[in-house]
Amino acid sequence: MRDMEKDKIALVLVGHGSVLAYNREMIEALANMIKERGVYDIVEHSFLQLNEPLLEDVLMGLASNGVGKIVVSPVFIAKGVHTTSDITEVIAKVKKKNPEIRIGYAEPFGADPRIVDILLDRAREAALQIE
Amino acid sequence: MRDMEKDKIALVLVGHGSVLAYNREMIEALANMIKERGVYDIVEHSFLQLNEPLLEDVLMGLASNGVGKIVVSPVFIAKGVHTTSDITEVIAKVKKKNPEIRIGYAEPFGADPRIVDILLDRAREAALQIE
Repeated sequence: MRDMEKDKIALVLVGHGSVLAYNREMIEALANMIKERGVYDIVEHSFLQLNEPLLEDVLMGLASNGVGKIVVSPVFIAKGVHTTSDITEVIAKVKKKNPEIRIGYAEPFGADPRIVDILLDRAREAALQIE
Repeated sequence: MRDMEKDKIALVLVGHGSVLAYNREMIEALANMIKERGVYDIVEHSFLQLNEPLLEDVLMGLASNGVGKIVVSPVFIAKGVHTTSDITEVIAKVKKKNPEIRIGYAEPFGADPRIVDILLDRAREAALQIE
């Protein structure tokens, strides 16, 4: 079982976390939508702070289950302190404790045309309130 | 000129702001991409904190130029304290000073399938690092 797991790539979403429930609910919803796409055998969600499970705990759990390859996907709009320092520090800590594990780190969304599509859809709905 | 402006809807993006340059650069890039779509005559970008111009200053500037309808579009992934309190407080303040202005407030991105597409693209790129 341990050897089989080693060839799989696990996808771990990491969200910002929030004192309100919206961020947690959205990260959970995105994880479910990604599971439904069927691209990754293992899809987990996690948070940097304020909500559970925390990124470090999810990564350590996968490592202790023998998962050898993990992609960490930040659910963040742009690079910033959270993506360039906070998340990378957690990844470095997990790698130090599990030298054999291989972790890829995905870029945040960036200025993608699909973000523009979403912004224009949301703006159109809001414009109906004032027209 | 003042009357003509009143029929237009101005779109105002509002980003989180960051001590690093990435968030500012992304919000500026998104504003330019939206301008290129040609849907709104006026497209402005702004920040809640840490970067300029601030949302309040952009809204006050539009109001003083006679723009009567504005859609505020939060460049945020999910609802949270910033979108349900901080931004709405700025909008309420501007409305109080300019009772004639009409401001629509757009939803954040939410768990949109296009976000899933972006996450899977970024994850695929990151997986190449470890395969």
